[in-house]
Amino acid sequence: MPELRSAFFISDRTGITAESLGQTLLTQFDSLAFKRETIPFIDTVEKAQALAERLHKVAEEDHLKPLVFTSIINPAVRRALHIDDAIMVDFFDAFIGQLEQELGQQASLTVGKAHGMVNEAQYDHRIEAVNFSLNHDDGIKLKDLDEADVILVGVSRSGKTPTCLYLALQYGIRAANYPLTPDDLSSPTLPKMLLPFRNKIFGLTIDPARLHHIRSERKPDSKYASLDNCRREVNEAESIFRHHAISFISTTHKSIEEIASTIMHKATLNRRF
Amino acid sequence: MPELRSAFFISDRTGITAESLGQTLLTQFDSLAFKRETIPFIDTVEKAQALAERLHKVAEEDHLKPLVFTSIINPAVRRALHIDDAIMVDFFDAFIGQLEQELGQQASLTVGKAHGMVNEAQYDHRIEAVNFSLNHDDGIKLKDLDEADVILVGVSRSGKTPTCLYLALQYGIRAANYPLTPDDLSSPTLPKMLLPFRNKIFGLTIDPARLHHIRSERKPDSKYASLDNCRREVNEAESIFRHHAISFISTTHKSIEEIASTIMHKATLNRRF
Repeated sequence: MPELRSAFFISDRTGITAESLGQTLLTQFDSLAFKRETIPFIDTVEKAQALAERLHKVAEEDHLKPLVFTSIINPAVRRALHIDDAIMVDFFDAFIGQLEQELGQQASLTVGKAHGMVNEAQYDHRIEAVNFSLNHDDGIKLKDLDEADVILVGVSRSGKTPTCLYLALQYGIRAANYPLTPDDLSSPTLPKMLLPFRNKIFGLTIDPARLHHIRSERKPDSKYASLDNCRREVNEAESIFRHHAISFISTTHKSIEEIASTIMHKATLNRRF
Repeated sequence: MPELRSAFFISDRTGITAESLGQTLLTQFDSLAFKRETIPFIDTVEKAQALAERLHKVAEEDHLKPLVFTSIINPAVRRALHIDDAIMVDFFDAFIGQLEQELGQQASLTVGKAHGMVNEAQYDHRIEAVNFSLNHDDGIKLKDLDEADVILVGVSRSGKTPTCLYLALQYGIRAANYPLTPDDLSSPTLPKMLLPFRNKIFGLTIDPARLHHIRSERKPDSKYASLDNCRREVNEAESIFRHHAISFISTTHKSIEEIASTIMHKATLNRRF
């Protein structure tokens, strides 16, 4: 008998919702190990039947019922997928009846709108936010900072760039970023050019030991990466944030999703699409 | 009575799972309109009680029960949130019992692992993928293309850059991109420098009218943006893909999520974290 149970995240579109749902549930059973696979675009009865046969085989080979997390909407496709020797966690099935009853409406059974392209204007807006973040990475174009929804400020390698890109992709937020250089840090206040934008600045900080580790990967044995220098830069950056009463968070023990959603929440930003 | 029903996506961490889940369900009722709000980080009984009071007030003001999609894990916090005059769609409650029974294990009730930071090595890997994509945007550093997991090729503004960044952030994939310039397009074959990487190239194409629209926003009335030129470039790019039997997809009616997950699937790439 194998040690691993198979877990499938199956969707009629991207698989993002089924995966997100399934992963959250699986993290609750962290003493167990799972073989995970995401299978998107199961949107016909034929594809579902072929997949059901594969699931049968997995159940036989594993001597364990596979876990099947599914967000398929079309009832015929869902029926074709359901097999007895799998543990079916059917997201749509579980809630749609309750919602139909409460809302007094039939579900439209339209596939894939959640991560589909709702309309071109929204798509354009999102791409624009990504381009904005790319163009304003590391303070390149200060003169346009008044168009930013938020400006992330922190020392080099504190997590600004990936957070900006995530804010743009996930929320359509125009996020610029400004790296505090050693020059900037020698003053107790923000660089002058940032002062007019004080109200949309959000600070990022990081544990100096972690920063030392990250910078050492990039420039080993440099002054830039030394633990002493990292400590000093982080202290000075935090002093500047406190001086201006700028909210800041530590990125040390957070994923990009957590950093971004914390900023959305604390800076009371609204999703742009 | 207002026309809009309030819908809340409530989470003990980022809100990403609750939002993804709730939005998918709401798209099934597209004749109804909703006021949507995401509320992350409800991780104490006190915060849940305060929010429950707010939900009460919303129910009274709207004269309609608000919809509450929640993925809160801690049972005490969930109980504090549940109120009678809301429609509670409790993601955790619906499935965890079934899973506990089938897996023969109690849920660990640990909060926030799905979008939390699993470990530093994984975080580093993801940041590295983002940096890789940024450094290889628009073919800047060809000499390192052998480190790429996938290379997206297409005409200017066909969607390469946001797709690369999404692949990096969502899947930890090292995605490079190469823009086919008018020079490249005058030849029926791929640029020579790309030939050694033929097996990891994936093509993006786009409807010429849509491309014309996108390019016109950037450079109105230019030859670059003209419909004729867009038609010719798209035709030539698709000929090159066919010549080398390179898989390609149209980005015209797809969201970034759909483009990225289609590439993951068709290029049989595996998530890197």
